[in-house]
This record gives sequence, structure tokens and C-alpha cells, in this order.
Amino acid sequence: MRDFTDHLRPSQPDGSTTLARERAQSSVNVEELGQHLLSSDGFLERQARVLSILQREPVLSKDKQQNLSRPDRFKLALARGKLLRRLKDKHQWSPEDHKMAEYLLDDVSPYFLHTEMFVTTVREQGSEAQRAHWMPLIESWKIIGAYAQTELGHGSNVRGLELEARWDSRTKEFVLHSPTLTASKWWNGSLGRTANHAIVVAQLLLPAPGSPDKYVSHGPHPFIVQVRDMQTHQPLDGIVIGDIGPKYGYSTIDNAYMLFDNFRLVFTTMLKARPLFANPSNFSIPHAAFLSRYSSVDPRTGIYSKPEQPALVYGSMTYVRANIVQHARLVLARATTIAVRYTVVRRQFQDRDGDKTGPELSVLDYPTVQIRILPLLATVFALHYTGRGMQEVYQSTRQDVEQRNFQSLAHMHSMSSGLKSLCTTLAADGIETCRRALGGHGFGGGSGLIQLNNDYLSKPTVEGDNWMITQQVAAYLIKRMTAAIESPNTPSDNDTDASFKELIRAKQGKSPSHCQYDVLENDRDIVRSFQLRAATLVYPKSLS
Amino acid sequence: MRDFTDHLRPSQPDGSTTLARERAQSSVNVEELGQHLLSSDGFLERQARVLSILQREPVLSKDKQQNLSRPDRFKLALARGKLLRRLKDKHQWSPEDHKMAEYLLDDVSPYFLHTEMFVTTVREQGSEAQRAHWMPLIESWKIIGAYAQTELGHGSNVRGLELEARWDSRTKEFVLHSPTLTASKWWNGSLGRTANHAIVVAQLLLPAPGSPDKYVSHGPHPFIVQVRDMQTHQPLDGIVIGDIGPKYGYSTIDNAYMLFDNFRLVFTTMLKARPLFANPSNFSIPHAAFLSRYSSVDPRTGIYSKPEQPALVYGSMTYVRANIVQHARLVLARATTIAVRYTVVRRQFQDRDGDKTGPELSVLDYPTVQIRILPLLATVFALHYTGRGMQEVYQSTRQDVEQRNFQSLAHMHSMSSGLKSLCTTLAADGIETCRRALGGHGFGGGSGLIQLNNDYLSKPTVEGDNWMITQQVAAYLIKRMTAAIESPNTPSDNDTDASFKELIRAKQGKSPSHCQYDVLENDRDIVRSFQLRAATLVYPKSLS
Repeated sequence: MRDFTDHLRPSQPDGSTTLARERAQSSVNVEELGQHLLSSDGFLERQARVLSILQREPVLSKDKQQNLSRPDRFKLALARGKLLRRLKDKHQWSPEDHKMAEYLLDDVSPYFLHTEMFVTTVREQGSEAQRAHWMPLIESWKIIGAYAQTELGHGSNVRGLELEARWDSRTKEFVLHSPTLTASKWWNGSLGRTANHAIVVAQLLLPAPGSPDKYVSHGPHPFIVQVRDMQTHQPLDGIVIGDIGPKYGYSTIDNAYMLFDNFRLVFTTMLKARPLFANPSNFSIPHAAFLSRYSSVDPRTGIYSKPEQPALVYGSMTYVRANIVQHARLVLARATTIAVRYTVVRRQFQDRDGDKTGPELSVLDYPTVQIRILPLLATVFALHYTGRGMQEVYQSTRQDVEQRNFQSLAHMHSMSSGLKSLCTTLAADGIETCRRALGGHGFGGGSGLIQLNNDYLSKPTVEGDNWMITQQVAAYLIKRMTAAIESPNTPSDNDTDASFKELIRAKQGKSPSHCQYDVLENDRDIVRSFQLRAATLVYPKSLS
Repeated sequence: MRDFTDHLRPSQPDGSTTLARERAQSSVNVEELGQHLLSSDGFLERQARVLSILQREPVLSKDKQQNLSRPDRFKLALARGKLLRRLKDKHQWSPEDHKMAEYLLDDVSPYFLHTEMFVTTVREQGSEAQRAHWMPLIESWKIIGAYAQTELGHGSNVRGLELEARWDSRTKEFVLHSPTLTASKWWNGSLGRTANHAIVVAQLLLPAPGSPDKYVSHGPHPFIVQVRDMQTHQPLDGIVIGDIGPKYGYSTIDNAYMLFDNFRLVFTTMLKARPLFANPSNFSIPHAAFLSRYSSVDPRTGIYSKPEQPALVYGSMTYVRANIVQHARLVLARATTIAVRYTVVRRQFQDRDGDKTGPELSVLDYPTVQIRILPLLATVFALHYTGRGMQEVYQSTRQDVEQRNFQSLAHMHSMSSGLKSLCTTLAADGIETCRRALGGHGFGGGSGLIQLNNDYLSKPTVEGDNWMITQQVAAYLIKRMTAAIESPNTPSDNDTDASFKELIRAKQGKSPSHCQYDVLENDRDIVRSFQLRAATLVYPKSLS
């Protein structure tokens, strides 16, 4: 509809003019910086290649999506998730290409749990036979899986989960049962409407040795369970599943509740189709559900073999935390980019000390805006290198674990917890600081910060609440520091150990006030001073 | 749909049991506290009476509203807004009763600007004749009004508004014109779809004395303008209006953009119907639009009479800020109530130092939860008394102004700016702290915090950005302190003045280190120490 506003222009100098002027004043080589930050893992090349494909697809246009109802928004996300999978096949995308497409689309995909925690759990926790059976079904999307651990009444304390997986020694079957309402699985993404399978974490209940009528719990263990009929998509008899309803963000994903009523893990469609486990010399069919790479239940005797490393059960959570750490930089980079550009373009009030003939000042020229935005810009770079460091530690630990070397596991677990808490708090609070720095326009859809903020506000509490998991880090650090003090000359497992021991050796006989750090001139000394601070906080006695 | 979950109960002790036990441990008389806080202005009686009426209306049920699309959510809010008005007539509600209904409904009403800024501006800025004409139309909702001040490119700096109201001395008409895109009115609530009239704030352009072809601006002034046809509801010729689209919250209100193309303020439907202004001895008809209580333009000569107090133009903004200050307590009270109750009911991990046979600990028993929630509980009480203090100062200043005594205006303006910034920052950040303290469930719709947070996040930037208006407060305080130092013995205008002068007198010859405040035992000394701190920050030299 044409009207007189078609001919109007912004007041001068307009945004493009102002941005061009600001850019001309900078001596930073943007091309070079981009290559330095994002070329080593092919990010920039991949982004350009995948983006050009996505831009051709009308269903991926973000123009109208903010006006949709929650159910319609979910349906759109489902259509998009399927399309990305078809594009993956068509263009022979690698898993990294597919992830780039999801990043650019910026929906939390309804298939997110399938492509992340479901496949990772089967890969990491499944026995060789289980992986041989399930991985082709998962990778071809012949089955769609979710990850059902959290319950309505139980999140942080995984050992407190109520769902029972009782071993029926008569029928040699596991029986899943939700004894209470609080035992209801809750929050499980991709499960409310999309998935037909799930990793279900339940208390493993086995007959007590010598008293077959009495059961003892061996703690939470993961089972792979078909939860919906493959033809009708209805929940199987004895299972109730649904969508938990509205959330702060995440309207593109179907977080679920799920309860079991004495549900027996028996033959499933998929197992009938490929009866890999029918050979009793491996184990019986119901046993196929018990992910048994690290622990097992003898199908004849019901006797339990516990894992060498109980922490391995939480492997998928660590994987997700490491990814969250890596992801934070890009989230805050987007928010900060928006804030820097907008506060340059936005002008408000003339310079009181100027001649008052020119345009109003860019609001970024005000110290009250600079002190909010510029530290966040620096934080983005810190998050970038931190995320890369986290990935390196994660990958090398995974390699160790595959070799059944579990020495670095505790360090990696502690690092992923501490950094998940720190990085998501920095990014979540940073987005909101950026949003408010945009003034009124930060409240508008044009800011580009609404879905970003709504979705990201899950991060400080999801996958280990930020306040809770830092206590795990503290406990780990105190333990390592105590060990370092007791035997300062043993070889170190990791950087934390090594720096603790170095400090103890350096400080023996010296009081902290004798430490000299040239924090103004020497970058390495800034790091050393933080190491000293950390060590002192962890174990003040050691340095007194 | 009945299934096996109907018979399930929460694990024990359940929420009701836990809450009952906690309440039994408290010695606070809740009834008495409620009366103390909320009975003096009839809040509790009004709440009970209005709530019982609202609960009978199905359209006011909040059960499904979170699932609606933005357009449907707006339509629902419009239906509810109309219903509340009909209930007002039916039950002969006072304005306070109507506000209570809106508070309980908890939608930002599409009629909000009509019942708040529109009516307030006409009442405060209109001449006697203008009020006699417009107030009955406004109060009977025969016209629906909005308030259009902010522009796309201009918010904080009201003097920078671009919309022009040019006085055509030939036709004796004002001509509204938007010269640029950035001059577009923007964010104006109730105007996108609902209102047919608006207060439009525009630069008053009058011919320069002696050079009738040259125009000079006399700054922004409010005009009352019919913007839509009373029969078709279409924008009048020369006006473009629309809804600005998605926002962070406020999906229940139609924030607008609006532009004018040499739009002449001439006869309107309403003025034709009641030609109160047709008598040229008052002023000509186009002049009816120029709200002329404090300033005027002579319809014959075009000569401008400026207001005694230019700050009066911002009266409606001060009114809204004072209301925002008053409102903060109830918002944070709701969030804190949810957080306290939930963190008592929510149990996670057993007490490590206990015998490990009992239930898990309430998370409120953890210091990491207490240090987040309990200070906010105290803040609610502080906000309560602060809000009441703000209302008292606002009301007494309004009485002064009605008597044309403008002495207390600057103090009230500064107080409303400073407290608007402080109280909304405390409340907005407090809601988010409460939300995160709920762990994962804080991200769910069941938390009750989604719409509360989404709507409230407008507050730190709306009606004067929190960072910007505190600078106005600082400027005012420095000015008053300088005056107090120059003449410490003149009578004080207000509390700030008085405390500055008291401090200066008390301190003469003493250094701050000699001040002795018994902040542990004497409440009054806590206040005194903060006064000293404020005075020292405002004018360090005075106390050295």
C-alpha cells in the first residue's frame, strides 16, 4: 500500500552514513580478525556456503514468525527441521554443515535432542552390539529419539530420580514404573510430540542377593525405550506423554512429561525388524534396552556389574555443557554487535560542550553507554578462546575415555561445570545489558534480541543450575588442592593440578604479600595473579 | 481423558504439607501485617470485592492465554478491556475499583493510555474550556485517546522531536507534518488499533516576529487530535497509523507508529457535535486542539505566551513515573512470593550432615538460595514504603501546582526520576533473580513469571531510560547542594534541601571521619549515614 511515507528519508546523518564514518576511523583489519577467529575450523567458509542454500527456502524466512501462536510456531519449526534434514541429504552436508544450518536458522530444533543427546548417549553408553543396532537407525532418522532424565520433582540431584526400572527375574524383563506424580519425567525436549524413542534414565532396582523379594537400587541408569507406536505415533500402552505447555522461550521445541505404569521393556518394532539381540549368547531381548557399555546386569542371575567410573553415566550431560560453553561466544557476539551498531546510529542530545549546530551525539559516545557495552565486547573475545579451550579438553578426554583411561575425566567434568556456569551467566546477563542499552527500541521486535533472550534465558538453569554446579567445581578444586599439598612433587594430571603445585612450591616460606606481579605490562602475570587468587580461595592455609 | 496418572500423588512430604509446616514455625501475624500494609487505602477490601466479580467471567480466565498468537492475544485483551468497562458501569466501580480490576487481570490494557496519560494530559494541560469539552467525552469513552510523544528517532531528548505543528497565519490553522522517517511517532500505546484521538506532541512553529515567512520553534507542545474517522475507524486523510509489531512483552497493547502529511487541524466530528469553541471570544476552532492551560498562541496575531513553568509540559510523564514507582512493590512482591513458596516446596539433595533417612532439603534451606531471595523479600517492603512516599509527594505537589505554586515541582520531578530508575531496576532484576532461583521450573509457564517478566522488562527503559534520568537527578542534586552551600540558612523547600543544609551546618569545621553513626542499634543513624553519603557524593568539597 503506497502512501506519502514512501518518499520520506531518515533525518541526516542517517545510520549508514554514521556507520561508514565510524568504520573509517578504525584501524582494525576486519577481514584478518575474522579469519583469525573463525577460519581455523572452517566456520566462515561453511557459513557462507550453507547460508546461500538456506536463503533460497521461503519456509526459513524469519519475517513473520514472531506473530505466530506457540502451537503454530512449533509446527513451523518441525517443518523447518525436516527441511534441513532433506537439504542435508540433497547437498551431502556433514554433521557440522547441518549444525551450521541450525545455528543460522536459530530455532531450537524439535529434533535437537535426537541429533545431540540421544545419539551421543547411545554412542557413548551403548555396548558395541547396541551401537551396531541403533546407530544406523538413529543416523538415518528411521527412529527419532529424545533424552528423558529430569523429573518433575528431581533435577540437580540425579540420584534422587524416582522412576523405577525393576528387574523381573521371573520374566527376565525390566519394568518401568512411575510411583508418584513427582516421578513424572518433565522438560524432556523433542519428546512431547516428536520422538518415538527415548533414553530413559531410571533407578535400577535388582533383587537383593539372597532375598529375591527385596529390591535394592543401584542408582540411575540409562535405558533406550520405544515410547510411541511407529505406525500411529500414539504412546504405547502403559505410557502417558504430553507437551508441558508454555515456556519462557523454546516455543520451537516440544518439552515433555512422561509417566510409566508398570511398562515392560519387551520386543519393539525396531527390534523385531532387526533382531540383532535375539542371540542369547549376547543377551536377551529386553536387555537390549539397558545401555551396557560400562555397567551390566547378568540376564540369567540378575547380578549387577558396576562401571569402573560412575561419572561416565553423566557423559552426555558433560557433552552438552561443553557445547553450551562453546556456544556462548556466538550468542553474546550477536547481542553485542547489535548493541554497538545501534548505539552508534542512535543519536540523542547535542554535545553540551559543543557549538550545538551539529547533529545529536551517538549514544555510544556517552560513558554511561560505553561502560555497559565495551566490557561485553571484550567478554566475547574471552568467551571465544574459552570455548575453544573447553572443546580441546573435551575432545582429548573423550579420546582418553575411549581408551578406558579415566584420569582426566574429573578435571574435564569440573571444567565443563565451572565454565558452563560462568559463560552462560556472562552471556545471559550480557544480552539483557545490551537490550537495555538499546533504550526503548530494545523492547521492540526490530532489536533482534527477543527470541535470542527468551531462548537463552534457559541456559543459566538448564543442564545443571549455575549456582549448584559451581559448588561441584569448588568441591573438586578443594580436593585437588588438598592432594597437591599432601604430595606436591607427584606428576600432575592437568593444568589445575600443575598450577596448584607450582604455586605451593613457589610460596613455601613466603607470604602472599611478597608476590610481585606486573599486571600492567605482562599478560602472563595477570594469569599468574588469578591463579594465586584461585589457589588462595581454595585453600587459604596453604599460602599462609 | 482418564488414565493411570489420575491416582498418582506427589512424593511425601508434598507441597501443602511442607508449606503448612513452615507457616506453623513463623511468629508473624499475617493478617495483621496484611492490614498494616494494604488496608489504609482500602486495597484488601477492594481486591476481595472486585476479584469475586472477575472470577465469574470466563473471558478473563488466564488458562489458555499463553498459547495465543500475538494478534489473537491482543483481540482477547481488547474484549477484556471492554468487559471491564461494562463491569465498571454495572457495578458502579470507582476509578480505583477499575484499576484494581486491571491489576488483577494483569493485561497491559489496550485502553491503558486512554485511562492514564490521555485523560491526565487533558486534565492537567487543558484550559477550562477544553476540559469542559473533552472530559465528558473521555470519561464516557465516547472517544478513545492515546498519547503520541516518542518518535522513531527521538525518545529521551524530547526537545529533539521532529514532528512540526506549524501555525498557518493565513488560515489560522495548525498544520502537523512529519518531515522525515525518524519523525514518525513510535511506541505510542493504544494508538496502533484502538484509539480515535491522541495527544500529539509536536514542535510549535510560529512566524518569527517581523518576518512572517520565517518560522521559529517554541519547543514541543501537546495537541489533542482526532486521528481516525469516528464511523469507519480509518485514519483520516493525511495520517498514516499502524501497529509497530512484535515486542518483548506488551502483546496485549497496540503500540503504534504514526506520520502526518501536512495535516490541518480543522473541525472534527466531535467539535462539530459540541461546538463549544465556536465562540471566537474564546478562540477559533483549530485552536481547540492546542492544549492551552499554561501556554497559548494568540489566534489573531500568532504571538506565543510561554508557560510560567516549562516543566509543566512533562506533567503526564511525571504522573506515569510516580505510578511506576508505586507499582514496583506489587510486581516484586508477586515474584518473591512465588520464589519463597516454591523454594520451600522444592526439595533437592539430602542434608550431608544429617542421618540421610529423611526427605531431601528444601532448597530455601541452602545459603546460595537464601542470599538471592531473602534480600528481595526485604526489598519488597522498602519498595512499599517508598511507593507510598512517592505518592504523597506527588499528590501534594499536584495540589500546589493547581494553586499555581510551582516551588516543589523540581523536587518532585527529580524524586520521580530517581525512584523510577531505582525501583524498576530493583524490580526487573529481582524478578529475574526469582525466576532463576526456581531452577528449571522458572523457565516454565507454571512459574507465573513469564508474562510478568516480559511485560516488566519494558520498565527500565520506558518513560525515561533508567541510566539517562538518573543524570537528571544528579544535576538537580548538585544544583540544590550548591545553593545550600551558598545560603545554608535560607528556609528549605523540601527534605533534600533540608538534609543538605543540616549536614553542612553540622559538618562545618569537622572532617567526615569524625562522624559517629550507630548503624547497628539506631535506625535513624542508618538514614543519617546515607544522607551523609549522598551529600558527599554530590558535593565532596563541602565536607572536606
